[in-house]
Amino acid sequence: MSVTAAQGFRAAGVTAGLKPSGKSDLALVVNDGPLAVAAGVFTTNRVEAAPVTWSRTAVGDGVARAVILNSGGANACTGTQGFLDTHRSAEHTAARLGVDPGDVLVCSTGMIGVPLPMDLLLPGIDRAAQALAVTGGDDAAAAIMTTDTHAKQSVAQGEGFTVGGMAKGAGMLAPGLATMLVVITTDAVIDAERARAALAAATRTTFDRVDSDGCMSTNDTVLLLASGASGTTPAPGQFEDALASVCGDLSRMLVGDAEGASHDIAVTVTGASSEDAAVAVARAITRSNLFKTAIFGNDPNWGRIISAAGTVPESVAPYDPLHLDVTVNGVQVCRDSGVGEDRTLVDLAATREVRVVLDLNAGEAEATVWTNDLTHDYVHENSAYST
Amino acid sequence: MSVTAAQGFRAAGVTAGLKPSGKSDLALVVNDGPLAVAAGVFTTNRVEAAPVTWSRTAVGDGVARAVILNSGGANACTGTQGFLDTHRSAEHTAARLGVDPGDVLVCSTGMIGVPLPMDLLLPGIDRAAQALAVTGGDDAAAAIMTTDTHAKQSVAQGEGFTVGGMAKGAGMLAPGLATMLVVITTDAVIDAERARAALAAATRTTFDRVDSDGCMSTNDTVLLLASGASGTTPAPGQFEDALASVCGDLSRMLVGDAEGASHDIAVTVTGASSEDAAVAVARAITRSNLFKTAIFGNDPNWGRIISAAGTVPESVAPYDPLHLDVTVNGVQVCRDSGVGEDRTLVDLAATREVRVVLDLNAGEAEATVWTNDLTHDYVHENSAYST
Repeated sequence: MSVTAAQGFRAAGVTAGLKPSGKSDLALVVNDGPLAVAAGVFTTNRVEAAPVTWSRTAVGDGVARAVILNSGGANACTGTQGFLDTHRSAEHTAARLGVDPGDVLVCSTGMIGVPLPMDLLLPGIDRAAQALAVTGGDDAAAAIMTTDTHAKQSVAQGEGFTVGGMAKGAGMLAPGLATMLVVITTDAVIDAERARAALAAATRTTFDRVDSDGCMSTNDTVLLLASGASGTTPAPGQFEDALASVCGDLSRMLVGDAEGASHDIAVTVTGASSEDAAVAVARAITRSNLFKTAIFGNDPNWGRIISAAGTVPESVAPYDPLHLDVTVNGVQVCRDSGVGEDRTLVDLAATREVRVVLDLNAGEAEATVWTNDLTHDYVHENSAYST
Repeated sequence: MSVTAAQGFRAAGVTAGLKPSGKSDLALVVNDGPLAVAAGVFTTNRVEAAPVTWSRTAVGDGVARAVILNSGGANACTGTQGFLDTHRSAEHTAARLGVDPGDVLVCSTGMIGVPLPMDLLLPGIDRAAQALAVTGGDDAAAAIMTTDTHAKQSVAQGEGFTVGGMAKGAGMLAPGLATMLVVITTDAVIDAERARAALAAATRTTFDRVDSDGCMSTNDTVLLLASGASGTTPAPGQFEDALASVCGDLSRMLVGDAEGASHDIAVTVTGASSEDAAVAVARAITRSNLFKTAIFGNDPNWGRIISAAGTVPESVAPYDPLHLDVTVNGVQVCRDSGVGEDRTLVDLAATREVRVVLDLNAGEAEATVWTNDLTHDYVHENSAYST
């Protein structure tokens, strides 16, 4: 239900024919109000897809009535034609719904560098508009999947209001300011400023700290739509907490479904001089292919963990490289940058979730970044994907 | 012959027993003079191995008489004991050769976080000293191999002088200021200042632009020893060219023998506003797992190339993301950031070497960074390596 869990929203998921598989590939989410508040965060990749360029501008005024999302084609690196196609999708959707084209946001996902088949997409929009329902959340979540193995949805109940969201994403998963296609709806009464601030704060510690393969997408988009239909204005912090809960759930689901992964890995850096320092060190570790292959081999290889930490400049993260401690799933395998407890005490074969904690012994700040192991299946999926 | 190709050098490679395989694992290179000029560049990883700490200090005065190198153990993350072990290795070697311990450089390579078995290493040094010969270069090159499938050597002849070198390295291959274990010898008459400047210049465009897997080692060391035994003082540029030739050869060999690779990939960025900008963009591409798996799948996936380029901030590399051109093995698969020639014209299955050229259309500078594809065999070797 996710995006239709909150009052004031209808959604649909239909088959436009963009996917060779014939699975559903077009989702529509409509905000019936009374409010039409919206906020978005987008990829910081400079090579951004046409729908990102469009939606970033369209959401700039804090107002949106609908989001049209397609899988089966990213509409990235498609030049002027690609941007015109996005514009036509927004206009076509707006005409069907009787709203302003500038209040329709557009998201696309799939292969880069392939134009969208508009002869299939526009009739698909007609069918999606006809199928809109207050129970359409599940269909919408299914229609935005690409290499995802299951739909990703989350709902949080506040006092008198609801926040729900859907997400897609299983690869090319590393944040700029946001990751993946995510649509979150709420019936809380909030204004555009509160929506923007809450979304920025929530993504900073959730989607922004998921890094499956270090590769930043051209299409990453997280949208928040508020209908105000509950009539409830949440107390300070209440809406923000519910939103953070949904963002946290969805980002954890993205990691859990990453292409080819056999382990989900939480890298927590503690004892840092600042949160930024902790994030920088955690990210260096989560981007180390040697660390990620070691975890695939069920090997708590702490040498690869601290050597990855060692690549972060002192100006970014001050610490003494001779006084680092590492625990893997609770076993302190490295003490003072040397051998600690017996590493064979760590049984990684038994768990999908791996918890690495690196203590820099240099302060009080900490942060966690999630990643996955690097597996044969990742190599297979990403070498065979486009052929 | 490599390190003994130049006059004034002896070398040896023997079995100390550090490798379970029983293969040779200890190399010794001695400079018999008349000069004892030396220069070195080392990893910038803050978590550096004990022999790096030692050798960086020892070579600081521009003088060295010998280098003792072991495989079968990196002596990294081994604490105070590790540094004492390096010190003992230098002292033991110095005593055997009748030189000052401060003129013996030490290199180690192999597993991180495991103390060296000094009861095997010190007798090994005795045997290496006995085996020293002016024909010992091949044995030395073989003794420093770890996961390398073959020894890596190169020789360049100048007018009246010779430069020769050996290298090891097949993984954890991404430069700080230098990569891998490399020893280069010359009989040219040069002073320490010229040695330092020439080595820094040569590594900057060779070892520094090899990036197999984005993982920076704790042990990377490149050493240059000059005996002056030829009696020839090379004209300006002559020694520098010969040294660059040897460094280029050896770095190309490192890429060619990278763990599990099936393609060697040269990523050239042209039309950049500066050489630094070109290097930054090329490095972003060579570190993209999605790009690397695509090449493994023989897929000239230009979308992954320009989306990786898009992650480099404009402050680092100014360019217009809508005007990028990409050729793969001579076929222009992307024009103006959109579809170019038919990508099926690119036959990657037929070649090990892949040439990617990305034109930023933003200036005159260019640079090339070498990398490898990401394969099942890479995942296998690096998940099974320590177990």
